[in-house]
Amino acid sequence: MGKRIYLNVITIAGPTASPGMWAHPEDRGQEYTDLNYWIELAKTLERGKFDAIFFADMLGVYDTYQGSMDTAIRQTIQVPLNDPSYLIPAMAAVTKHLGFAATFSTTYEHPYALSRKMSTLDHLTKGRIGWNIVTSNIDSAAKNYGMEQQMGLIDRYDRGDEYMDVVYKLWEASWEHDAVVQDTAKRMYTDPSKVHDIGHKGAYFQVPGIHLTEPSPQRTPLLFQAGNSTRGREFAAKHAESIFLNTPTAAATKFIVNDIRERAEKQGRDPSKIFFFPKLTPIVGRTVQEAQSRYEDFLKYSSPEGIFALLGAWSGIDFSQYGPDKLLEFVEKRDNHGIIESFRRSDPNKKWSSEQLANFFAFGTSSLTIGSPGQIADVMESFVAETGVDGFNIGHIIQPGTLNEFVELVIPELQSRGLVQTEYREGTYREKIFGEGPYLSKDHPGRILAEAEAANRNRNKEVGSL
Amino acid sequence: MGKRIYLNVITIAGPTASPGMWAHPEDRGQEYTDLNYWIELAKTLERGKFDAIFFADMLGVYDTYQGSMDTAIRQTIQVPLNDPSYLIPAMAAVTKHLGFAATFSTTYEHPYALSRKMSTLDHLTKGRIGWNIVTSNIDSAAKNYGMEQQMGLIDRYDRGDEYMDVVYKLWEASWEHDAVVQDTAKRMYTDPSKVHDIGHKGAYFQVPGIHLTEPSPQRTPLLFQAGNSTRGREFAAKHAESIFLNTPTAAATKFIVNDIRERAEKQGRDPSKIFFFPKLTPIVGRTVQEAQSRYEDFLKYSSPEGIFALLGAWSGIDFSQYGPDKLLEFVEKRDNHGIIESFRRSDPNKKWSSEQLANFFAFGTSSLTIGSPGQIADVMESFVAETGVDGFNIGHIIQPGTLNEFVELVIPELQSRGLVQTEYREGTYREKIFGEGPYLSKDHPGRILAEAEAANRNRNKEVGSL
Repeated sequence: MGKRIYLNVITIAGPTASPGMWAHPEDRGQEYTDLNYWIELAKTLERGKFDAIFFADMLGVYDTYQGSMDTAIRQTIQVPLNDPSYLIPAMAAVTKHLGFAATFSTTYEHPYALSRKMSTLDHLTKGRIGWNIVTSNIDSAAKNYGMEQQMGLIDRYDRGDEYMDVVYKLWEASWEHDAVVQDTAKRMYTDPSKVHDIGHKGAYFQVPGIHLTEPSPQRTPLLFQAGNSTRGREFAAKHAESIFLNTPTAAATKFIVNDIRERAEKQGRDPSKIFFFPKLTPIVGRTVQEAQSRYEDFLKYSSPEGIFALLGAWSGIDFSQYGPDKLLEFVEKRDNHGIIESFRRSDPNKKWSSEQLANFFAFGTSSLTIGSPGQIADVMESFVAETGVDGFNIGHIIQPGTLNEFVELVIPELQSRGLVQTEYREGTYREKIFGEGPYLSKDHPGRILAEAEAANRNRNKEVGSL
Repeated sequence: MGKRIYLNVITIAGPTASPGMWAHPEDRGQEYTDLNYWIELAKTLERGKFDAIFFADMLGVYDTYQGSMDTAIRQTIQVPLNDPSYLIPAMAAVTKHLGFAATFSTTYEHPYALSRKMSTLDHLTKGRIGWNIVTSNIDSAAKNYGMEQQMGLIDRYDRGDEYMDVVYKLWEASWEHDAVVQDTAKRMYTDPSKVHDIGHKGAYFQVPGIHLTEPSPQRTPLLFQAGNSTRGREFAAKHAESIFLNTPTAAATKFIVNDIRERAEKQGRDPSKIFFFPKLTPIVGRTVQEAQSRYEDFLKYSSPEGIFALLGAWSGIDFSQYGPDKLLEFVEKRDNHGIIESFRRSDPNKKWSSEQLANFFAFGTSSLTIGSPGQIADVMESFVAETGVDGFNIGHIIQPGTLNEFVELVIPELQSRGLVQTEYREGTYREKIFGEGPYLSKDHPGRILAEAEAANRNRNKEVGSL
């Protein structure tokens, strides 16, 4: 039996996560506005013993390709897109163990509001919430929030660090564990001496008051991050407990895993308490032939223009400007998403043709894995062994078809190899994943900050009583 | 048979809506963090054919009484308080007709984010969403959002008017009705020529882009408002389709109903298409005696300090500073919530003692009604006839006990008199309430703005084709 593999599903609250696949006759993505679709999905995932569902999100529209948002709109590339966090309560009500990781941006949401949303969701799910911390990187989003253009990368992360300080103080340091007493004899619901103003004054935020909600099961939600840049990896190494990777190769994955674990260790954190989840998009068949013919059927619907809209947004390059031969050259020159950097690192001598590049990104993903249940399990097992990741974010091509097939065919294979859980652990999301909790571990900066605040308060109290 | 009476429940996502009642042995308010509590409540309300559940909300902590938030914390006066909007998806999943009105502040939430949240909820509930527009009036909230103190009243409403323009444009004018085509032959999910940038440039907001979600069943949620000041009533007369009143007497209620209907008519709106909901907090028994002894039992738990914390926040007066005799005098002088103004209007010659004042606000409400089912139905029927209101926001004292009793005892009485519905109308919340919809009516400024935008677009198109 190998190392246990943890599994999330990655999806969005829109019609399709896979450019073009909305047109496939089996696809049910257009039911995304219907709670019943999501309730059914939640039940499927819990039947498959998935650890969590991970909602990616976007607050702008991709408009790099052809300098226009038309392609993104036509091919429903993350537009329309609902607020995914509202799916969680309905999905939580029909499940007992499934975790929920929701994307919220530190750039467009005030920490006082976000902290309350996450605490509410952590209460309502009985501690099954994760937060994917994003600092946002789309100009069109910035403009709609009244900024002329997005903040620079460093600004966004510096502000993000202070943002995290604010939410840590609210979640961890404002309400003591025994603040809520519900003492009917004393007629005291909450002991006011145990609820504290956080008194935050920083460069970006002034938050003097108390947290508006009482401590939720995990206090701080399980923290996800997905930064790729050096500054982003430093941010992830400081804050993240789980990291979502979009690296296309084992070598690139291994590089990022090692890099972030080293950075975390330098910051005094246990690097084994940061889990890594690259994306994997399986196409499974009962046999190799069945999987291959499923792939070929899917490929008829994959939308190249949709893929270019997606890659354009990731890379900042308008691919329509260039003939296919020039494509890679420009991608290599202006790549700011680490995609080509990753290719090179995996095989420095290999030259990619534009056709290879397009195929590589069929369905808008670099993580396609086609095969029988045994073959897909093999890939997962060896990828984990080779790279040190802890599991996968499973993507889907048709909704929810490819996920249903994964649960039906691949999960039993993984279970029979002892690689994934056959029963859930009890407890909160953090306890289910790490086997300890429910709060941030003692070496996490959020916990350290909270304990420093408490020590400071006690010192002041002693001084006051002298 | 009298005029049909519409019924909402008013509550908050916290342990108690009634100061002190959390200590009552039957009270289950402390289950507020548990989805099952809310799911059960939703089913009860739909069984009782309630039109909607109305979630009040607060983004600060009441700290006027004794110049401290201690009393509010000790008596759980709207603290802790979860984000109520996350209860809605779980409650919507187990109901088919119940409407949901959620409070969101125009002061602390960007219109680009709020518009998406409301559209998402309108989709997920299949058009059962209302929005209670508040401009917020608590200093402690303003400070936690990084403002030194709250904006002035006029500023808040001027900004609120522009805020509404932004969300109307996003909801009504960005996506044409037939923009989403899902045309598999043409491989076009959405027709980009039918999705429009709103290009909003105003004094407070710059929002150039498109709405992020496709049109929801109602587009604009049913608009609730509760402004009391002259400027607030003007705002309500312009935007609101339903108005929540906290006026303590029939005369005060009638004044506000007439005032807002007149203002609406001056603005070209049909005044009968604005519904008014004063609060009513019933204590019902099978007999008068049973109701009275229930009231006396409840009164043992009502918390005077909690009530003062609540009244302090409403009035801006720290009642702890003054002996009971001085109380009313100061309330009269500094009343900025219209409470005493309302008293006076109802009976200009009456002098209120502080004891009368305290009793009047037992349980933190001025709307207590105690009696047998027939007596409570009588009060409701005559109040409607006298004031021109359209229904009530039913408050509860113990959770959910007093509501369960209302559904069990008062609803059948109201139904037998033909005053409330025995079956729901089909359609969205707006259609269920007004018998027409699902969109804003043609005389509503949001609809007028959208039609002007569309006409403007068509004109530009014609000019372009000359």
